[in-house]
Amino acid sequence: MSTVRRRPVRSGVTARVLDVLGAFTPSAPELGLTDIATRTGLPLTTVHRLVGELAAGGALDRGDDGRYRIGLRLWEIASLAPASRGLREAAMPFLEDLHEVTRHNVQLAVPDAADPGEVVYVERLSSRDAVSIVTRTGSRLPAHATGVGLALLAHADPDDVERVLARPLRRFTPHTVCDPDGVRTLLAQVRGYGFVISDRQIEPVSLSVAAPVRAGDGPVVAALSVVVPADGTNPHTWVPAVRAAARGISRALAAPESRS
Amino acid sequence: MSTVRRRPVRSGVTARVLDVLGAFTPSAPELGLTDIATRTGLPLTTVHRLVGELAAGGALDRGDDGRYRIGLRLWEIASLAPASRGLREAAMPFLEDLHEVTRHNVQLAVPDAADPGEVVYVERLSSRDAVSIVTRTGSRLPAHATGVGLALLAHADPDDVERVLARPLRRFTPHTVCDPDGVRTLLAQVRGYGFVISDRQIEPVSLSVAAPVRAGDGPVVAALSVVVPADGTNPHTWVPAVRAAARGISRALAAPESRS
Repeated sequence: MSTVRRRPVRSGVTARVLDVLGAFTPSAPELGLTDIATRTGLPLTTVHRLVGELAAGGALDRGDDGRYRIGLRLWEIASLAPASRGLREAAMPFLEDLHEVTRHNVQLAVPDAADPGEVVYVERLSSRDAVSIVTRTGSRLPAHATGVGLALLAHADPDDVERVLARPLRRFTPHTVCDPDGVRTLLAQVRGYGFVISDRQIEPVSLSVAAPVRAGDGPVVAALSVVVPADGTNPHTWVPAVRAAARGISRALAAPESRS
Repeated sequence: MSTVRRRPVRSGVTARVLDVLGAFTPSAPELGLTDIATRTGLPLTTVHRLVGELAAGGALDRGDDGRYRIGLRLWEIASLAPASRGLREAAMPFLEDLHEVTRHNVQLAVPDAADPGEVVYVERLSSRDAVSIVTRTGSRLPAHATGVGLALLAHADPDDVERVLARPLRRFTPHTVCDPDGVRTLLAQVRGYGFVISDRQIEPVSLSVAAPVRAGDGPVVAALSVVVPADGTNPHTWVPAVRAAARGISRALAAPESRS
């Protein structure tokens, strides 16, 4: 796992192709040619050519409005990523059990290999009556402010952790722990108790109970959490179910048939 | 939606980049450089360079064994595809309800825009005690042999349907309907009754009950199914729940807040 921030490779067509694809974001999932040119800094003629080639290959789809979206073919290929295929498939039965028992949002996240200060959500099971949350599959949040992020950061390389804590830590609510010592205390709790409660750090109305997921007996590769209303049941009530689900996924990841 | 089979654009670096990514398949999600060269027909030196550039951009990840996998960064971008983002997000609450009521596998699929004879599964909710099925998120199957495929094909362009039926139709079990007239009969049933029962067509032990999903009052954009044991309850028992879920998703897709 790389511990340095990924630097975009600006030279070469491959890098430009990835820049065009990377112009699409959760807040801008549909883009026109000019939008893509602005976001990538590439000349409009280059964007026009690359987008045409990407659309011909199914990596982008052109809507009736002339705007482009990520194509189904790219999604199909990308669903082969280990986080989606091996981890998500092994985790799903346990996430579903946890979801059914708690009736709250259940999430599975992995660290961003290029930036241990961020987590990417690879699955989310929600309920119509669950507290609303900002995350969705494929979205990301800072590690210091989320239950899954703290569970992952607690088991990251200590040098990486210090690099993350040396950066400004974004505040989401008055409850977000933004001072490095406060975060270090939470990380020590994860290591000591095997879970963490992230109390109203992202939204003032909800908290999450999270636990790390190991690849069998190996390193921590993911974390799961349940997001519950902050004014509801004592959050410690959920800890055994969350820890049991995390251990179940770890066990499933150790079984050879779940590694594919 | 394109109605012609996509032809790979073999010239240009963009096409070669997509060829390298497309070398990864559900049956071969991890590849070495030589594997990729063999599968793409590209010279090893070209593969070496492209793979290096893709790995630098996070589109591929290199494992400790020197083999490559699809990278988390590409998955993150690809999760912005409308099939994943808009459709899947709108459908999830209804899929979860259906899953909870039936306790069987629930699936959501979309047509391959480049080949209406195939469907791509964008979501699957399974249970530990449900009948085992071959599909998973991101996998594909021929439309003629699956419930979701028949539900989609029934509302496809008639010329496309005839082109699909003019091809050899793959047999999976002795029950797979492989003659064009038999498929046409099933398609007429979908249009007449709003659902279809695909009886032991993929595996001899299971059948699926499927219904089409419209974008609001517009065209059919997806289909959902529940997969149940062939020797279990009368499959017609599941029809009302499947149709109700399909209509619920259609309604959610019509609501502006679900279109993002």
